Amino acid sequence: MNRSHNYYAGPAAMPTEVMLEAQAELLDYKGTGMSIMETSHRSKEYDAIHCEAIEMLKSLLGLGDDYSVMFLQGGASMQFAMIPMNFLNANNSADYITTGAWSKKALKEAKIIGNAKVAASTEVDGVFTSLPKQTDLTLDPNAAYCHLTSNNTIYGTQFSKFPTTGNVPMVIDMSSDILSKPVDLTNVGVIYAGAQKNLGPAGVTLVIMRKDMLEKCNDGLPTMLSYKTHAEANSLFNTCPTFPIYMVNKVLHWIINNGGLEGMAKRNEAKGKLIYNAIDGSGGYYVNKIAAEDRSLMNVVFNLPTAELEAKFVKEATAARFFGVKGHRSIGGIRASIYNAASVESVTAFTEFMAQFAAKNS
Amino acid sequence: MNRSHNYYAGPAAMPTEVMLEAQAELLDYKGTGMSIMETSHRSKEYDAIHCEAIEMLKSLLGLGDDYSVMFLQGGASMQFAMIPMNFLNANNSADYITTGAWSKKALKEAKIIGNAKVAASTEVDGVFTSLPKQTDLTLDPNAAYCHLTSNNTIYGTQFSKFPTTGNVPMVIDMSSDILSKPVDLTNVGVIYAGAQKNLGPAGVTLVIMRKDMLEKCNDGLPTMLSYKTHAEANSLFNTCPTFPIYMVNKVLHWIINNGGLEGMAKRNEAKGKLIYNAIDGSGGYYVNKIAAEDRSLMNVVFNLPTAELEAKFVKEATAARFFGVKGHRSIGGIRASIYNAASVESVTAFTEFMAQFAAKNS
Repeated sequence: MNRSHNYYAGPAAMPTEVMLEAQAELLDYKGTGMSIMETSHRSKEYDAIHCEAIEMLKSLLGLGDDYSVMFLQGGASMQFAMIPMNFLNANNSADYITTGAWSKKALKEAKIIGNAKVAASTEVDGVFTSLPKQTDLTLDPNAAYCHLTSNNTIYGTQFSKFPTTGNVPMVIDMSSDILSKPVDLTNVGVIYAGAQKNLGPAGVTLVIMRKDMLEKCNDGLPTMLSYKTHAEANSLFNTCPTFPIYMVNKVLHWIINNGGLEGMAKRNEAKGKLIYNAIDGSGGYYVNKIAAEDRSLMNVVFNLPTAELEAKFVKEATAARFFGVKGHRSIGGIRASIYNAASVESVTAFTEFMAQFAAKNS
Repeated sequence: MNRSHNYYAGPAAMPTEVMLEAQAELLDYKGTGMSIMETSHRSKEYDAIHCEAIEMLKSLLGLGDDYSVMFLQGGASMQFAMIPMNFLNANNSADYITTGAWSKKALKEAKIIGNAKVAASTEVDGVFTSLPKQTDLTLDPNAAYCHLTSNNTIYGTQFSKFPTTGNVPMVIDMSSDILSKPVDLTNVGVIYAGAQKNLGPAGVTLVIMRKDMLEKCNDGLPTMLSYKTHAEANSLFNTCPTFPIYMVNKVLHWIINNGGLEGMAKRNEAKGKLIYNAIDGSGGYYVNKIAAEDRSLMNVVFNLPTAELEAKFVKEATAARFFGVKGHRSIGGIRASIYNAASVESVTAFTEFMAQFAAKNS
């Protein structure tokens, strides 16, 4: 089997072991003579997958029964709206820490629905190359919540530690670094994440909510837009995206079998070290503008001396089967998205490609 | 390969040819060395699948460029809310024809959001065994739209012909019979359908909207809840459920290769004739209470002389690998869901099982 180096920002690489298992049982799940894709969401076969995935998530994140785990649809973008729809009203407001394009989109939706303030923004001339320090934050002690994006896929920044927000619960968009390392969830009221980076295929969105937050959700919302609906029905109010959730279940098994979040952290740190060393040791040929402590281990963003060389790099990397390395259309450059499923061997091969390219094109 | 008879109401059977193709390319889509599940929604490989699926849908339904085809998320249940959110305001109302549990849920959401009237209801003592005639409808000539469910999965009824609503555009939930036969879409402004019955796996929702309806959508909505967002972005505003859409693409090819909607109608009529003849010819052992002209060709619902015999029927049918034949939990009895993918051979085998069961248990 000739698997490519898949560095897409999302939908992204999945572990080969997971894909092989899915392939083997695609037409016949455990002797049923049917695909799990063709099986009722109310069947005992599907239910076991669904409930096991929730238990694995709680176990990996160290969460007790004071949290609800939901599988929703619509991606993080739908959460940008559902969060303020559920938590804002005429008499309160929320704080938003804006550190990139996605957190700006989250803020925009909150402003459509209610009152939202910018607790900090690191935008300079339309771009974001750093994250705010604790002392940079202007926090409203009465905010309904404080929203944060833990990893910024476009700019390649990642919080190594979350700020503290006092009694205000944090709402964290972890779409691009969930389950990539252990995290301290003290004071985190809500986590949400589109699956298509570290969890599985596109089409399912993970929402984890502390139950005291669930109790605060607004009443009178359209049924599907209320978190209460989904929490009470264990995400089976209507037909859930069964096949994407089945794939998430397999990815969770793979994470557990590979050392859990400690194992993922070790793997991701090793990959990050390899690629940032390749950049920093290139004598200025490759440049990453992000402050060392804010560098993302998920999305490594860098530039070459010219846009022409960047285009050549993308072309030759693609020919060498490194896919998806073109930077986001809004900022250009190069981006290597190396989520959990990217292997150390693959990133080693990429750094070798980088060295060879620099040598030939300097 | 030992494929079962899959009579689940949804997620439901998919054509074996489609599943085999998906299995063959699951780890390596067209030589890319990646699954399509792992491929960016902005890639040329995925884009070709997405656009081709839209073109096939328009071609099968005979739609011109005055219609937008969208792939959304959240199932029909999310459409129950999005339709009124986009079309209702303080000064208008919508008509709802209620013919079963799903149309009642659609009405409930409309009432949360705006004004809605019941144009007709066939509910008697909490159950629905017929569909309204044209003369039963109380239509508001100024309604923003008139909502209808074309096929009722729980009660086993299906409109053979849509009512006429004058100048009021119809909004039709076709989740359970889309692409099962040619339909006259004169005066239909919106069609929506969860994919998991006739179109593909759960996790993608088809919405087809006439462009004059799109122009009438309310402004000021959360971005993801506005049809304008998705129509303008060709359903790529954010990451769409790429793998479910890829499966829909394959199912559409299968429909085209099997005679298109005429071919599906012929196949579904043949299956319906087999199974309803088995019921009507059972000397009263099997009973279907639906008026002949309202009987569904998708979900065939029937009773046996006692609840005990029904439980025995379900048990023995399952042992004979006819899966999913237990009636919906709200009404009991037996339900055989025989969407497009169910073959004439399979339904023939089922009628033989029915005859044997009746002979042994009379």
